[in-house]
Amino acid sequence: MNLDALYSKLLVKTNAKLALIVLDGLGDIATRDQNEMTPLEAAATPNLDALVAEGVAQGRMTPVAPGITPGSGPGHLALFGYDPLEFEVGRGVIEALGLGLELRSGDVAARANFCTLNAKGLVTDRRAGRIATEVCERLCALLAKKVKKIGDTEVIIKAGKEHRFVVIFRGKGLEGPLTDTDPNREGLPVSTAKPVNAKSAKQKKTAKLIADFYKAALPVLAKEKPANGFLMRGIAHQPAIPTFEQRYGLRPAAIAVYPMYKGLAQLVGMKKIEGPQTIAEQFERYAAEYDNYDFFFIHFKYTDKYGEDGNFAAKVQAIEEFDAALPILLKKRPDVLAITGDHSTPCSMKGHSWHPQPVLLHSACSGSDKLDRFTETGANAGSLGLFEAKFLLRLMQANAKMFDKFGA
Amino acid sequence: MNLDALYSKLLVKTNAKLALIVLDGLGDIATRDQNEMTPLEAAATPNLDALVAEGVAQGRMTPVAPGITPGSGPGHLALFGYDPLEFEVGRGVIEALGLGLELRSGDVAARANFCTLNAKGLVTDRRAGRIATEVCERLCALLAKKVKKIGDTEVIIKAGKEHRFVVIFRGKGLEGPLTDTDPNREGLPVSTAKPVNAKSAKQKKTAKLIADFYKAALPVLAKEKPANGFLMRGIAHQPAIPTFEQRYGLRPAAIAVYPMYKGLAQLVGMKKIEGPQTIAEQFERYAAEYDNYDFFFIHFKYTDKYGEDGNFAAKVQAIEEFDAALPILLKKRPDVLAITGDHSTPCSMKGHSWHPQPVLLHSACSGSDKLDRFTETGANAGSLGLFEAKFLLRLMQANAKMFDKFGA
Repeated sequence: MNLDALYSKLLVKTNAKLALIVLDGLGDIATRDQNEMTPLEAAATPNLDALVAEGVAQGRMTPVAPGITPGSGPGHLALFGYDPLEFEVGRGVIEALGLGLELRSGDVAARANFCTLNAKGLVTDRRAGRIATEVCERLCALLAKKVKKIGDTEVIIKAGKEHRFVVIFRGKGLEGPLTDTDPNREGLPVSTAKPVNAKSAKQKKTAKLIADFYKAALPVLAKEKPANGFLMRGIAHQPAIPTFEQRYGLRPAAIAVYPMYKGLAQLVGMKKIEGPQTIAEQFERYAAEYDNYDFFFIHFKYTDKYGEDGNFAAKVQAIEEFDAALPILLKKRPDVLAITGDHSTPCSMKGHSWHPQPVLLHSACSGSDKLDRFTETGANAGSLGLFEAKFLLRLMQANAKMFDKFGA
Repeated sequence: MNLDALYSKLLVKTNAKLALIVLDGLGDIATRDQNEMTPLEAAATPNLDALVAEGVAQGRMTPVAPGITPGSGPGHLALFGYDPLEFEVGRGVIEALGLGLELRSGDVAARANFCTLNAKGLVTDRRAGRIATEVCERLCALLAKKVKKIGDTEVIIKAGKEHRFVVIFRGKGLEGPLTDTDPNREGLPVSTAKPVNAKSAKQKKTAKLIADFYKAALPVLAKEKPANGFLMRGIAHQPAIPTFEQRYGLRPAAIAVYPMYKGLAQLVGMKKIEGPQTIAEQFERYAAEYDNYDFFFIHFKYTDKYGEDGNFAAKVQAIEEFDAALPILLKKRPDVLAITGDHSTPCSMKGHSWHPQPVLLHSACSGSDKLDRFTETGANAGSLGLFEAKFLLRLMQANAKMFDKFGA
């Protein structure tokens, strides 16, 4: 029997409340430069320590597969219990979500950036000299005004930072993925977007649409300097994903600050709760919404941000800020609480990595691993062992007593 | 290459003796109520401790999949090295095994219980007022006498506790699963058993057989009060399972006390050794049969029983009873010894759970994890890590040097 089918078959309804707290990029590695301490180890976390003393299970999670460094998309899909190898979300879709655009089923989205073309139509600068964001916004507004539709298909254009923008095509019978129009080096013409699956009529239709979009949009930019052209990458459609509620029987809410994470939550059908800006405000809002949902995804960005900056002290401080706010959450304690990251972002690497992130699980039946603190090194000796991140949600459901026994 | 095929290809014959000791429901969780001790941690286990000091490998096993709580069937199939998602054993089969009935390949078994029907044939009590076991035994004897065959198919009926009994159909061309005849609530007529796979001719034939069985059996009960009807559930056939000896090249024996575990062992072709009632007697019998078999499955029930009762002290005592008997086993030491549970049965939960059970493996090449004792917390740091229970048997075979090198 298929494992997802088994989980569905055994599912029982309870009144349990579950909360998943994601400290983005939480995991780190100990290096000599930092006295062999990770930020979690270096941080003062009295509230986490007290929770650990009450009894928690710990472990480490492989975000996707050994050695695979995930972006935010696959990292979060796994945390939401969706196998990121089964449910692939194209870069165009991720980028659109990151700009706060609402995507509908069937929409095709693409990352785009302005470029410079010479008189022969060859790309001379793939980033148009990294034009200022204001220029990008002006050009996108111009394009949006002049190219509202291609045939029956609606075109939605939104500016990002510097030379970057996103295009969404909303119409019938569209499908990704298509190949990029970015030739990947200067001196070549803009490539043609081609179906990845040559047999897909929908992909062929979408390829024609992209070509028509170029025909309509390039004249609009013809007199601009240096941004008189554009390149498109990651052309993909919003995938069909069973909703979180269908899959788990839980009414989910997302309390995130950054658009990307709201978007990823929305992708699986979570309700976005808008407003809170700090982790303390997020926890307060959780308490206020406690009765309205069964599952809360609460996202904290700064551990990742400072990891990317290589700023050890700031990552420590971000963890301490989270710890200081934790009592607000615990005042209205969820039945099942998981605290983890979507991947590691080691300060010494200044970027995402494949290192398994630590995870803490607390419930009336989580048991205690008798560790003193929640750290990477401690989690190595936890009862959850090393497991794939996509199973965390199933363990949370088990702790919520949401599964019948399998077999007699 | 398929992994099972690889194991088969690499298999070599040795004279090694392997013993798998299953302390049913051994695993537990540490809670504040019990000073953060599990029964294994609280028990005095001098003999286990001495074995650990000699050198053992430890780890924890996911019984089926993360968060899945197994019944005895899937739990033991995994310990016997059979993927419980691939080899599913129906409830009727498990129930028949639990009553000590011998099943043959192709037999169809069903759980049944007496019920009360009104004049219109509607179910007014799904359990016939929970009639006494003696009444059940009398009615089963009556049915067995009056309905010995349906056409060419032999009918075997055996009483269980109170209103429960089991029916086995032994004939040609039969197959499950069928849907239940239990309407699941009062006020409805007895349902018709239908093929789960509408295209299966064998299931159709079995559905007809069940209908004919009702026609023959209901008149026998017509004048009984309150048990004038019966409902059937979990109608399933004995699945085709490659025998233990075919799969592993080992002659296996089961030394179990409870019928269910003898039955599960028999399901994979183990020889049942009857007689012993205590763990000391089981170990003595193991020593007596040492030369006759290569693999011994020895089952100890009481850790699970007291876990289900929530009786921490009794679970501790059961572990100590096992430990006291252990030297009998070790007098004729097997080349490979594994001690584990089929799942956890935490006292605080009074039931089976999904928490990985601890496992200990001892052989001339098990190595030592340098832990002081065999406990859940210690096993978290063991060299076996966290792995799926279905692989334990493969690790035992490896420790018995039963596998050639894979590739050059």
